[in-house]
Amino acid sequence: MNVISLSTFRNVPEFAKGLVRDLRVRWTLEELGRDYRTAPITFDERVGPEYRQLNPFGQVPALRQDGETLFESGAILFALADGTPLIRPGVDGRNATLSWMFAALSTVEPDVALLFTNDLIRTEKDWARQSRDEVEAAVERRLCDLDRHLNGREHLLESFTIADVLMVTVLRFLKHTDMLAGHPEVNTYVRRCTARPGFQRALAAQLDDFEPMAA
Amino acid sequence: MNVISLSTFRNVPEFAKGLVRDLRVRWTLEELGRDYRTAPITFDERVGPEYRQLNPFGQVPALRQDGETLFESGAILFALADGTPLIRPGVDGRNATLSWMFAALSTVEPDVALLFTNDLIRTEKDWARQSRDEVEAAVERRLCDLDRHLNGREHLLESFTIADVLMVTVLRFLKHTDMLAGHPEVNTYVRRCTARPGFQRALAAQLDDFEPMAA
Repeated sequence: MNVISLSTFRNVPEFAKGLVRDLRVRWTLEELGRDYRTAPITFDERVGPEYRQLNPFGQVPALRQDGETLFESGAILFALADGTPLIRPGVDGRNATLSWMFAALSTVEPDVALLFTNDLIRTEKDWARQSRDEVEAAVERRLCDLDRHLNGREHLLESFTIADVLMVTVLRFLKHTDMLAGHPEVNTYVRRCTARPGFQRALAAQLDDFEPMAA
Repeated sequence: MNVISLSTFRNVPEFAKGLVRDLRVRWTLEELGRDYRTAPITFDERVGPEYRQLNPFGQVPALRQDGETLFESGAILFALADGTPLIRPGVDGRNATLSWMFAALSTVEPDVALLFTNDLIRTEKDWARQSRDEVEAAVERRLCDLDRHLNGREHLLESFTIADVLMVTVLRFLKHTDMLAGHPEVNTYVRRCTARPGFQRALAAQLDDFEPMAA
């Protein structure tokens, strides 16, 4: 197999460490036992013409393999996991995996990411504070729905899949809050998934790879 | 082929007409020349136990076919278009289609949907008005990136795909603004795609199907 090159950030602010979205790809690669190398970029480089060839929106991650480029973590995970047990078997299993992948990225993440951004990045904005109750309530509704679904289940589907990789890494954007504790099924689910050796290795690798921030 | 049943809303406020996300599925089915029937629900029913069997998050659309249920418009479109020219051919083509599908739903839609919600739903909230410049700037950045990508292209990829169905229906959430006019490539692209007979039939069908709002 050819070498996989994964774009990452050279460094990020403290609050973002362990949360940058290349973690999803690292985790999937660890679950699959596949090697990769990183291609670190700076925040400035991500909006430069060279990196835009990899990702038109200047975001991390992007992935290169065999001359092909992929962007968006959902698409990268699907490509890597195709034909492996990380996608449920058969056409129906694939479709169900995709339903939960899109649910994680398109239904749960927008609300969670808005709370994260308002709480940790827009700290100087009065409107971010004033909107908090409403933004938090939207996240709370998603967590209630997810808690209901996870009742009696170990994973989103019948086994661990890349939909779990996405959902769990989305939910970790709430770790500055105590919101998960109020949803026992979700809380146990996140602990169960993040206890996997593949997640632990991926997280350690992301944290180890950051260079010191410039003073 | 067996009958496709697509969940829709019985009625919605005026500003949401022509924008409800079942439009994406209707458009794809029109492009494929496939029949479907609708299964309309009320706003209350969408969070009831019966509809949650179809969509755990109580959202429209969901789709039933041959006893299988699918939710999330991205996953529904992929399932419907699998093996058709609405997904680019080959593994690389499929992966590229997925990259742009996730870009539409995970990168562009969250910013666009936040502006839409703040402008048209949170009209009584001071913080929604106070945040507008920053929310609009985030949308503007996405539109600039998209405009650059579309320069010299008719579609996101080499031909019309379900990634265009998603991107165009996301961008239509900006129709209460004049933001598209400032991005000529994006503007032309949206006009090109919405001029397709399949889109026109899908839009007319959604609008025709709404029942009058209760007084």
